[in-house]
Amino acid sequence: MPKMTFKANAKSENPMKSVVETGHFKMIIDEPESMGGTDDGAAPVEYLLAALAGCLNIVGHAVAQELGIKLNGLEINVEGDLNPAKFMGQSSEERTGYQEVRVTLKPDTDADQATLDQWLASLEARCPVSDNLIHETPLKLSLS
Amino acid sequence: MPKMTFKANAKSENPMKSVVETGHFKMIIDEPESMGGTDDGAAPVEYLLAALAGCLNIVGHAVAQELGIKLNGLEINVEGDLNPAKFMGQSSEERTGYQEVRVTLKPDTDADQATLDQWLASLEARCPVSDNLIHETPLKLSLS
Repeated sequence: MPKMTFKANAKSENPMKSVVETGHFKMIIDEPESMGGTDDGAAPVEYLLAALAGCLNIVGHAVAQELGIKLNGLEINVEGDLNPAKFMGQSSEERTGYQEVRVTLKPDTDADQATLDQWLASLEARCPVSDNLIHETPLKLSLS
Repeated sequence: MPKMTFKANAKSENPMKSVVETGHFKMIIDEPESMGGTDDGAAPVEYLLAALAGCLNIVGHAVAQELGIKLNGLEINVEGDLNPAKFMGQSSEERTGYQEVRVTLKPDTDADQATLDQWLASLEARCPVSDNLIHETPLKLSLS
């Protein structure tokens, strides 16, 4: 299949708040007042977790259909821990991003455990966002 | 510093659309009609790029302040390429996530090139979202 290219264009509104356009959608990204932001939107690290949850919903339904699993509903809870030291400009031995991301999937289904285990195993391998988290992804930063 | 835990809770509305809550914010994640979605929100892989852009805006301003750079404005363009084959259930040698993510930063500033090069070099090291992309991040999936 041909590669697809996705884009996001952000404009800073203030040091913590940006408005990001992806196609015809706009997202407001900010920080809570406790972090010095204006709390007009979720934080970047929350957008990252949301991306993962949204991706697992889509892949979860696609794989379920392939396995003959009927999903009456699906909830996905995602959480991650990070040490904000380096982000805040302090020296730290710990990485600045999430040290681990935990996902709990709650499918509403009558499928048996063996089928659900097979379903779960397929999700990581198929979901683009989980792939970008689990494995190294080259990032190229440049100035315009 | 103590670790911080962030959470996102997603409920599926249909096979492609989910509503994600992070704190008191809601995000709609969907796919365009061309991908079989209802186009009520941006795609998960677009949320991932937005998270990166929003993170670089915040870290960009923090590092600029530390370096004495006055930012009158900042635009951040992010793009990434992926092959949707594996995501769509086809076999593929290529990874399912972004193969590369490119970021172009457009700071409106009078700072000299050497200072801007120093600024750019700090961004990758400090931004949690770029850290989670560049380096491996453990992901734990479980069924509730």
